Amino acid sequence: MLEEAGASIILGNTYHLYLRPGHATINQLGGLHRFMSWERPILTDSGGFQVFSLTSLRKLTEEGVEFQSHIDGSTHFLSPEKSMEIQAALGSDIVMAFDECTPFPATREEALASLELTERWARRSKQRLLELHSEPPAAEQAGVRIVNQTQALFGINQGSTFLDLRKRSLEGLVEIGFDGYAIGGLSVGEQKSAMFEVVSHIASFMPDNRPRYLMGVGTPEDIVEAVALGVDMFDCVMPTRNARNGQLFTSRGKLNIKNSRYKDDPEPIDEACQCKVCSRYSRAYLRHLYLSDEILGSVLTSLHNVSFYLDTMGAIRQSILLGTFNEFRNSFLSGLARGQD
Amino acid sequence: MLEEAGASIILGNTYHLYLRPGHATINQLGGLHRFMSWERPILTDSGGFQVFSLTSLRKLTEEGVEFQSHIDGSTHFLSPEKSMEIQAALGSDIVMAFDECTPFPATREEALASLELTERWARRSKQRLLELHSEPPAAEQAGVRIVNQTQALFGINQGSTFLDLRKRSLEGLVEIGFDGYAIGGLSVGEQKSAMFEVVSHIASFMPDNRPRYLMGVGTPEDIVEAVALGVDMFDCVMPTRNARNGQLFTSRGKLNIKNSRYKDDPEPIDEACQCKVCSRYSRAYLRHLYLSDEILGSVLTSLHNVSFYLDTMGAIRQSILLGTFNEFRNSFLSGLARGQD
Repeated sequence: MLEEAGASIILGNTYHLYLRPGHATINQLGGLHRFMSWERPILTDSGGFQVFSLTSLRKLTEEGVEFQSHIDGSTHFLSPEKSMEIQAALGSDIVMAFDECTPFPATREEALASLELTERWARRSKQRLLELHSEPPAAEQAGVRIVNQTQALFGINQGSTFLDLRKRSLEGLVEIGFDGYAIGGLSVGEQKSAMFEVVSHIASFMPDNRPRYLMGVGTPEDIVEAVALGVDMFDCVMPTRNARNGQLFTSRGKLNIKNSRYKDDPEPIDEACQCKVCSRYSRAYLRHLYLSDEILGSVLTSLHNVSFYLDTMGAIRQSILLGTFNEFRNSFLSGLARGQD
Repeated sequence: MLEEAGASIILGNTYHLYLRPGHATINQLGGLHRFMSWERPILTDSGGFQVFSLTSLRKLTEEGVEFQSHIDGSTHFLSPEKSMEIQAALGSDIVMAFDECTPFPATREEALASLELTERWARRSKQRLLELHSEPPAAEQAGVRIVNQTQALFGINQGSTFLDLRKRSLEGLVEIGFDGYAIGGLSVGEQKSAMFEVVSHIASFMPDNRPRYLMGVGTPEDIVEAVALGVDMFDCVMPTRNARNGQLFTSRGKLNIKNSRYKDDPEPIDEACQCKVCSRYSRAYLRHLYLSDEILGSVLTSLHNVSFYLDTMGAIRQSILLGTFNEFRNSFLSGLARGQD
């Protein structure tokens, strides 16, 4: 479905794949690309974000994080080294350094301690991934039989909402040197204005010749705004999670397919959308599938939302190439604000 | 998905579509083909089978059946006339006469009374559908604004496991005259040998120039055996329901994808299968999707099972044309019996 929708890269969850079916199993079956039959690029996260979400089930030390599986309660340990071993075994194209996603809110001291830990972990991540790529016995010993030496490694910026700490964190990462830089620890409960203040500030210091990745963001509006501030890459569960809950993204803002006003509505979700769902199915039919708990409902609404996001990113890229991004942004945002009739 | 798998006809449930979203809504939106964006033929059942399954929620009279909706408990009435109005509103290509699916076991007297009721209802079904097709004001009054005059009507044979009653039922239907004849009231708890005895007996009396449809059957073995006895058409939830439960059909019998023996298995579900799932995905990956409750798991296993059934029917038709059906049947059944390695 993602292939059909034109996705050029997907994200694999290190935490989930480590627990089930296991990175060794995936490596043995040829790596994640082959396992899931996906030939295009894959980015894997570090596993840290999920582990830190298990607040009551984890124990943090300098070495790493001990946690209990959400599936069976078994005890596991994740560290920068372990995260690299898992991601090397998965064979993704972009590997994320293992970071501590600083909880929000954090005091200045907490944020400082957290970003310093993240920096030490970033250094250990890079060293371990280099070993796995360049020393076959090390990889073999870690259970990584099939190695993808072309894996890129991204560092993750932390520092909560303290602008000077954000800059300090970035400088540390740039000194270590990564293939790309991510802004982490945002979209975790802070005000939207605080998020954009951080992005605006830190993006101006990020290397021009490396991808800039804003993690866990966001709504279509957020994405366009963050691009305006200089961000290149995003990831978010919103298009698919919201689709499963009946919330659809359109060029005129959100639409809740459960709403009874769509009962007899022969129109597509978004008449401006070129996706397969909008070219074939009515709101009335999609509402019926949703209310009847049909799997096809989730499939079609997800396909639309993902297509809408991909098309938006495509339009952003196109407008940047044409030098018309500001016009695009104004027209796109005013369309969203217009709402459904 | 069914389009992609090559399905040339699908079945729509009159009971479910009547309750939700409502046949009037579907008619208003252009009929069932347009509503679900399916351009190939559709057969609709009469709604009777589902209503009779609601044992405690229904009341049967000569006129029809009163029942309570399984969704909200509201009271409804289904009769031959009402069933025709609903199916006319849906605009399917094959309409099924409204029958009483004789419960099993039944005494001879019960079976006789039931088939006689079914015969009277078959007559009323035909008359009402003719009216709806030929008298626009009648259709209009029944809320059928868009009429598909080319709808075919099939009668349904009853008589439980009493061979003489089956024959008597068929003679009554043939006298009324239908576009096709279905064998109903089987696969409802009787022994398989009893089912085949009925099919074998009654198929020999069914008109040669009309489709013969065995309702609610069955396993791949059952289908091949019933074809050998002269049956042309089948319907069954098995391919999709079993897929959602992890049970896959293969040329070497059933395979339960939950089984831990498939944990690391790089092989496709069925190496003899040409479907999209077997050409791309391993048993290990499908097992992982199943255990992780991923929607994609149900989608892919359903696609395989439906493809397996459609391919089996295709191979049956091909072998009949080539005059090699018996060879096909022997080789197919011995493959199924061979089982997984």
